Amino acid sequence: MIDLDTLKYENGLILAVVQDQKSREVLMCAYMNREALEKTVKTGIAHFWSRSRKQLWKKGETSGHLQKVKEIRIDCDMDSVLLLVEQVGGACHMGYRSCFYRNLKGEVVGEKVFEPKDVY
Amino acid sequence: MIDLDTLKYENGLILAVVQDQKSREVLMCAYMNREALEKTVKTGIAHFWSRSRKQLWKKGETSGHLQKVKEIRIDCDMDSVLLLVEQVGGACHMGYRSCFYRNLKGEVVGEKVFEPKDVY
Repeated sequence: MIDLDTLKYENGLILAVVQDQKSREVLMCAYMNREALEKTVKTGIAHFWSRSRKQLWKKGETSGHLQKVKEIRIDCDMDSVLLLVEQVGGACHMGYRSCFYRNLKGEVVGEKVFEPKDVY
Repeated sequence: MIDLDTLKYENGLILAVVQDQKSREVLMCAYMNREALEKTVKTGIAHFWSRSRKQLWKKGETSGHLQKVKEIRIDCDMDSVLLLVEQVGGACHMGYRSCFYRNLKGEVVGEKVFEPKDVY
């Protein structure tokens, strides 16, 4: 097990990319502090640091759309992590499975899996 | 086409996640400024902003390990982009196909595709 203290946090945060373990779809990006990463490792449920709310954020706590973490990878520079997860429902607050549901042409290419008004 | 000026740059930079279009492997994360994103769109070859060298960085310029960009997606918050690419050689300077070649247990799980000393 790699010591979480050896990872490179920038202003206390490390970047986390979240990928669906089965479909390999990239679901979202977020940031973790040391505590969020530790909680993620211990509980097997993705936790992040909300930079806007300035608090620990258990993804899906309100919506039920949890991310069950199956594997965590680290990059060569040790300044970002990749979570391979089983996503309950959708990762995106707009109702899509992935936050990357649009391309640069402006076309919607992602799958809508819930109606935000029914969930939040 | 979404206006590149409407994206949300933080200190002039936007996060880019790079994914292999075919294998769906997440290859790396890097940052782009407006110019790097524009060059990427115009040339179809991934360009980033090197935060350490403080300069525009055409990925693979030295090694030949270019990333041919097939599609660009943007996330719901418009503060990160996902590049779907065809990766020539390997994305990682350590010789692996992906920078995320280790898991948190410390095991090497990625595929080594070149010897760094032969390339750099």
